Amino acid sequence: MPESDLRPLFDPARVIFVGASETNLFSAGIARYLIGHGYADRLTMVRPGAGTVFGRPAYPTVAAAAAAGPFDLAIVAIPAPAVGEALAELGRIACRLAIVESAGFAESGPEGAARQAGLKELIRSAGIRVLGPNCVGVVNTANGFASTEVQPESLVPGGVALIAQSGIFGSILLDAAPARGLRLSKAITMGNRLDLDEADFLNFLADDPETRVVAMYLEGVADGPRFLRAMERCTARKPVFVLKGGRTAAGAKAIGSHTASLAGRDAVFSGALRQAGGRRVENLEELLDAALACSLCPAPAGPRVGLVTTSGSQGILAADVLTSRGLQLAELDPATLAALRAKVPPWVPLGNPLDFGPSGLFAEGVAAQLADPNVDALLLLVTIPWGSIRPAVEAGMPMSALLGEPEMLRAAARRKPILVSHLGFPPFLSRMRAAFGDFLPIYPDSERAARALSYLAGFRKSS
Amino acid sequence: MPESDLRPLFDPARVIFVGASETNLFSAGIARYLIGHGYADRLTMVRPGAGTVFGRPAYPTVAAAAAAGPFDLAIVAIPAPAVGEALAELGRIACRLAIVESAGFAESGPEGAARQAGLKELIRSAGIRVLGPNCVGVVNTANGFASTEVQPESLVPGGVALIAQSGIFGSILLDAAPARGLRLSKAITMGNRLDLDEADFLNFLADDPETRVVAMYLEGVADGPRFLRAMERCTARKPVFVLKGGRTAAGAKAIGSHTASLAGRDAVFSGALRQAGGRRVENLEELLDAALACSLCPAPAGPRVGLVTTSGSQGILAADVLTSRGLQLAELDPATLAALRAKVPPWVPLGNPLDFGPSGLFAEGVAAQLADPNVDALLLLVTIPWGSIRPAVEAGMPMSALLGEPEMLRAAARRKPILVSHLGFPPFLSRMRAAFGDFLPIYPDSERAARALSYLAGFRKSS
Repeated sequence: MPESDLRPLFDPARVIFVGASETNLFSAGIARYLIGHGYADRLTMVRPGAGTVFGRPAYPTVAAAAAAGPFDLAIVAIPAPAVGEALAELGRIACRLAIVESAGFAESGPEGAARQAGLKELIRSAGIRVLGPNCVGVVNTANGFASTEVQPESLVPGGVALIAQSGIFGSILLDAAPARGLRLSKAITMGNRLDLDEADFLNFLADDPETRVVAMYLEGVADGPRFLRAMERCTARKPVFVLKGGRTAAGAKAIGSHTASLAGRDAVFSGALRQAGGRRVENLEELLDAALACSLCPAPAGPRVGLVTTSGSQGILAADVLTSRGLQLAELDPATLAALRAKVPPWVPLGNPLDFGPSGLFAEGVAAQLADPNVDALLLLVTIPWGSIRPAVEAGMPMSALLGEPEMLRAAARRKPILVSHLGFPPFLSRMRAAFGDFLPIYPDSERAARALSYLAGFRKSS
Repeated sequence: MPESDLRPLFDPARVIFVGASETNLFSAGIARYLIGHGYADRLTMVRPGAGTVFGRPAYPTVAAAAAAGPFDLAIVAIPAPAVGEALAELGRIACRLAIVESAGFAESGPEGAARQAGLKELIRSAGIRVLGPNCVGVVNTANGFASTEVQPESLVPGGVALIAQSGIFGSILLDAAPARGLRLSKAITMGNRLDLDEADFLNFLADDPETRVVAMYLEGVADGPRFLRAMERCTARKPVFVLKGGRTAAGAKAIGSHTASLAGRDAVFSGALRQAGGRRVENLEELLDAALACSLCPAPAGPRVGLVTTSGSQGILAADVLTSRGLQLAELDPATLAALRAKVPPWVPLGNPLDFGPSGLFAEGVAAQLADPNVDALLLLVTIPWGSIRPAVEAGMPMSALLGEPEMLRAAARRKPILVSHLGFPPFLSRMRAAFGDFLPIYPDSERAARALSYLAGFRKSS
């Protein structure tokens, strides 16, 4: 299907919600969310007993609700045995897209699998495209549309699109993302992939102006060649990271796949993905850390990294990670060193990492490395014992005293990637995020920042 | 020296603090900390101008303070050039142990290195043992003694002893540990290791009844054979994990070591460490995650892991990590499956991972696996969207509804290791930590929990 046809999934003109309820926690959450987020007047609800839901009229059947349409999107959350008939009815009233959230299909054993197989033919003849079943659908932070209840913290718009196979995984990531500083453009949970799959969404996200980077969790691929074509198309425009579950026999068995020659198949997946421009990550943390860097930073022009640190050990650990992952420690330009020497006491050694300890000169180091033509990317490793900085912070010390003026840094960070780590007292990390977190990625230790930078560097123009 | 001679470092009868001040942030922090934590009457302060510090009398010199002694520990935080004379005076009044926190020695260039070399002979003839210079000394959570300002959160006693080379690293870890659920027994920062080194502290911690596991950050070893003997002695009694900075040429250069044949030396270090029973970890996160597991859990009797999860994907990712690190997914006993089948609706598949989704049956799965003789260790993967559980939590749902009764779990966790992950909304994680965190290690995702379990399993009796 043309990707443009998926637009109503994320920005529907009129939604019909089949399975609205005040008492079922899950359904009530969806209704409450949509009513509370500006979709009240675009929402038509269907519930078996009709009557009202949250004070708004509900229709007993899809057919009865037809007059309130046309609908460009349906959300379906009803018991599995009733889903087929609901989809058929939706086809009859010319609703062409549905998010089926109901569980009880292929994931639940042979009976569910047979039920899911039955839907396949039905939706084709009804002319309706389906996301799901067994998913929680989508979130679009640009307009606040979501087919699941989302915490307000997760709705702050950002550049990361998340594609997850399982509903709960996606939903949980929405809960966990804000605490990591990660802001989403879209989130998509695919569930059992009766119809729409990862290739459809890669094609859609390739064209989505709000999405700067795509992070995917996959357990398997519905159609290998089609997936790789879509991957190639998307990675030509923006980074795509993939975390794959089921690398091992035990993992694959947990998915329910066949295990024959699994190791071979896993290596084949890696190779094909790489050829199509996608990057595989080792674990969930790397997926989110790499996506955070790519959503906020430009790719570096080269491999030369400048480090500014208040902690020798954090600098050493970061240097180990960077150089073992193909990056280099920048050799600072003589002019940079001379300029720094003029500002810094003679007993402070100048090098890279630029270890300024508790000298209070951190921001000078940042400015010098930003201006240095030999530095392609900056890693700022802030580790200050809370006890020693608390009095100053509580006396009103602005965060600009730490890294530099936010507006200057914001502008600089558009040209050169700047990644930050803060190992220490969480309230201090929160203050740093409040001051810099909307344009600088901030990680809880220097090694995670260095790993994220190595992923970002994989997308530099010269590579 | 006999290890017992180090006891006053952690539990001094009388402390003399050379360099007390109300105005220097660092020194004021030490004085304020000791006065506020029960050491007021055991503390004697020395400051050049004499007078008072925080309303208490201060002596102008060590000699003048002698009458208030004898002292079994000195804390020295004065400018580097004055340290030698202070140590000589301390020797004259028979103080045999000192923590020298002053910087400006070998870490600061040739002049400082010469100054440090000069101290070496001096302390030998003065008969005084020294921790530091360029460190923040020690923390002992059992009695609240610390030679640096520590946040109250970091003083909750636990089983992890931390040995870090650099002052700031140790201090920062003290800030960061509580947010990770990590509770310390002792923390030791060694700084430049003029005298006391990692071997002394391994020997001391081997005998420390409050320490269940040792976590070390090292950049190099002062005396290889002595280090390995102490490591062997300590690992015979408790797990020791080592994170080493300077694995790569760039990292080593950042330390300031020679780089010749570095890769070879790094491999030699790994091999020797392994032979002495120590476990090397890949990064800081693994160091803290492994220490957390070992501080709270017994080692499993065998490699068979039972998983209970609310999220298929988290179970799959954990299974991948476990089996690729030498563990197995347990085959549940037929009796366990029969007992579960009696309690669980027929459409819930029973296996391992035991994926109970949002069924509310999680605690049943935990109890069944705890009782199963085929399960050596449990991994509980809690991932519940906050939106769906918030109403119940806010209506007063006890945390026991989640994993089981805390007292039952506490008792069970003494026999079989139980590790938990929670990927999701941070306030929910905080609630879980409040209910279970003092006896169960809780990680922010299933892969980290699985990796920590693999380190714990390295110390099982059969291995």
